[in-house]
Amino acid sequence: MVKIPGNPRSLEIEYAIRDIVLPALELEKQGHQILKLNIGDPNKYDFDTPQFIKDAVTDAMNRGMNGYSPSTGYPEMLDAIVADEASRGTNITVDDIVVTNGVTEALQLIFYAALEPGDEVLIPGPSYPPYNTYVEMMGAKAVEYRTIEEEGWVPDVEDIRSKITGRTKAIAIINPNNPTGALYSGKSLKEVCDLVAEHPGIFIISDEIYNLMTFDEETAPTSRYSGEVPMIVLNGISKIYLAPGWRIGYLAISDPRGDLADIRDGIMRQCRSRLCANSITEYGYLAALMGPRGHIRETMEKLRRRRDLSYRRLNQIDGLSCQNIGGAFYMFPKIECLEQGPWKDDKEFALDLLHSEKVLTVFGSGFGKLYGKDHFRIVILPQEGVLEDAFDRIERFIRRRVDEV
Amino acid sequence: MVKIPGNPRSLEIEYAIRDIVLPALELEKQGHQILKLNIGDPNKYDFDTPQFIKDAVTDAMNRGMNGYSPSTGYPEMLDAIVADEASRGTNITVDDIVVTNGVTEALQLIFYAALEPGDEVLIPGPSYPPYNTYVEMMGAKAVEYRTIEEEGWVPDVEDIRSKITGRTKAIAIINPNNPTGALYSGKSLKEVCDLVAEHPGIFIISDEIYNLMTFDEETAPTSRYSGEVPMIVLNGISKIYLAPGWRIGYLAISDPRGDLADIRDGIMRQCRSRLCANSITEYGYLAALMGPRGHIRETMEKLRRRRDLSYRRLNQIDGLSCQNIGGAFYMFPKIECLEQGPWKDDKEFALDLLHSEKVLTVFGSGFGKLYGKDHFRIVILPQEGVLEDAFDRIERFIRRRVDEV
Repeated sequence: MVKIPGNPRSLEIEYAIRDIVLPALELEKQGHQILKLNIGDPNKYDFDTPQFIKDAVTDAMNRGMNGYSPSTGYPEMLDAIVADEASRGTNITVDDIVVTNGVTEALQLIFYAALEPGDEVLIPGPSYPPYNTYVEMMGAKAVEYRTIEEEGWVPDVEDIRSKITGRTKAIAIINPNNPTGALYSGKSLKEVCDLVAEHPGIFIISDEIYNLMTFDEETAPTSRYSGEVPMIVLNGISKIYLAPGWRIGYLAISDPRGDLADIRDGIMRQCRSRLCANSITEYGYLAALMGPRGHIRETMEKLRRRRDLSYRRLNQIDGLSCQNIGGAFYMFPKIECLEQGPWKDDKEFALDLLHSEKVLTVFGSGFGKLYGKDHFRIVILPQEGVLEDAFDRIERFIRRRVDEV
Repeated sequence: MVKIPGNPRSLEIEYAIRDIVLPALELEKQGHQILKLNIGDPNKYDFDTPQFIKDAVTDAMNRGMNGYSPSTGYPEMLDAIVADEASRGTNITVDDIVVTNGVTEALQLIFYAALEPGDEVLIPGPSYPPYNTYVEMMGAKAVEYRTIEEEGWVPDVEDIRSKITGRTKAIAIINPNNPTGALYSGKSLKEVCDLVAEHPGIFIISDEIYNLMTFDEETAPTSRYSGEVPMIVLNGISKIYLAPGWRIGYLAISDPRGDLADIRDGIMRQCRSRLCANSITEYGYLAALMGPRGHIRETMEKLRRRRDLSYRRLNQIDGLSCQNIGGAFYMFPKIECLEQGPWKDDKEFALDLLHSEKVLTVFGSGFGKLYGKDHFRIVILPQEGVLEDAFDRIERFIRRRVDEV
């Protein structure tokens, strides 16, 4: 055997949300039932893609739309995205859009086009892991900026300011946020945008994939405050339209001054080389964008009850505290009792919880070493009975472990 | 305006097959009808995905398979791939497979995991462009090895031998070949595999996406000759099962000695970080692999008539010569008259042909500067009448241009 050396960077890739599934699968193989609060996939619970969206995919197949689509997307799809973004005040044209294989592919295209080794990207701390992963895969550095837990996980503008350097290329805003469920106020967004405006050479990545999934107030689109600042908006079918497995989304470049000319070119060149996104689920997404949105209200009504229950129960558990959430379907409780228990860190906590109570969550440091640690993430997607069961087990688990010490 | 610098490598990406579409779109905007022989997409012509495969996608949607799939693919899909590969003598297990967003994503995963700047990958000359693109995107070098046109574009083993260096990491075999349509004999494959076996530290990438699309003889699977040599096999739904827009395929790692342990780990880490391939077209592919294959015979019967016509007509045109093909649906004629005409190179030839006769082909150097030049690629997918029209125009075009000089 001659072990062929690989790219060492590829061996550093971690993805907590999926990596923690491996020990859970082991337990399932041994016959255990696992209570899963780990994955942001509504369709694993009692949600499903609306029928009219599924019908649009079947219709596309029957109309023979099974060949490659244009690299950036079908013309009617681009038109629908322009109209949808315009309805939120984001001013783009069809030439600014690439329909992608989900937001994940959009991030890959952007970071490959934009980053050289040593460059820096400011990402929220805590943050959805691919932001870290795809930045570091380029040999660039993902710098976590603080979000303030006590104020509902809103960006700490002074912390962002202190972390901008000559190598900062971009700042990511995820709103509503994964994993914290934070919904940013217009004021908060404006402060971030104003700060970026003071620093030419930095562009905004605005991940709005949960934008229509809010509980009390609507999401303020970043474009309302970005002005002339170059920005790339991300969205997709996965969450709002309940079809995460269909892997279809888009990136839209809003660049009034042309600052992103080279990065745009690099994105478009990659876009052509990888042929196209999925041709039939693209028509599903088109139907979703053009169609009725009653299912969103229904989804959010169900989720509101689960949120209220989760918020109440989590804060009743001795040793945990949790902020309420404004959007999406995640909660990110703090393990206040971490030092009173036998655990070295939040990862040990989550693995212990999995092994002893068969409740699968994701350890907080998987979302960022700085601001994710000492927490864990749950989804509030399961039905109330399942949530109650999960919280009973978590409560029992913490009490027992702390008592044991 | 402050132009934000991008990654210079991203600005070097070229993809001839799609890049040449841009001037064609311009002509269409001006009202011209373009005769398209440029894209390897059967569904753009009189081919369509078999109904039972479409039905499997609809069924998957209705059964609620719209959430994320496991990162490497659904268990039943992995089983079907193992069985299908086993039927060709390729010995893999479910743990060796990643279901991907087409072969394109498979190449991205492999080259990111395997390559460091300065590494080399031997690719056929001429070759399908993503092989060059994704290698160069890593800062590595794609080295074209000669395939011998006069012998039907088979690999020149002595040329491969002369190009193996201490930095060679992998060699790609595309069989049947895009863009030449070559079908390699067992003898030819064996020579290549034996040569690689003499050089520990090199693995084979065997792209078999056209493997069931042959005219006279069956494709010999590379695994028949690879023995202990580490190999990654690629395949997908696009061509054989007539659904290129569905973006679903796989990579399978055959690694008897464990040489690829690190590269496998790097692939799997990326695989988890990008969530999954498309959940519903995966079920379409599953149905295809398990289902009847009568449509393949029908497809190849139609293509045989188009191949025979294309071979005859291309060789009747003064100034062109063309090898016959054993598989796939491409022909790669040589522009013998290039120096007699007004053209600087094959790219000018193809653009001139597009503008003056509205026939869209792909210039040969887009498939490799060394061995692709002085050629162009056509697909033999259109109906006979369209092909006859195209060849009439090409013949007229060459005669006129050569006469003018």
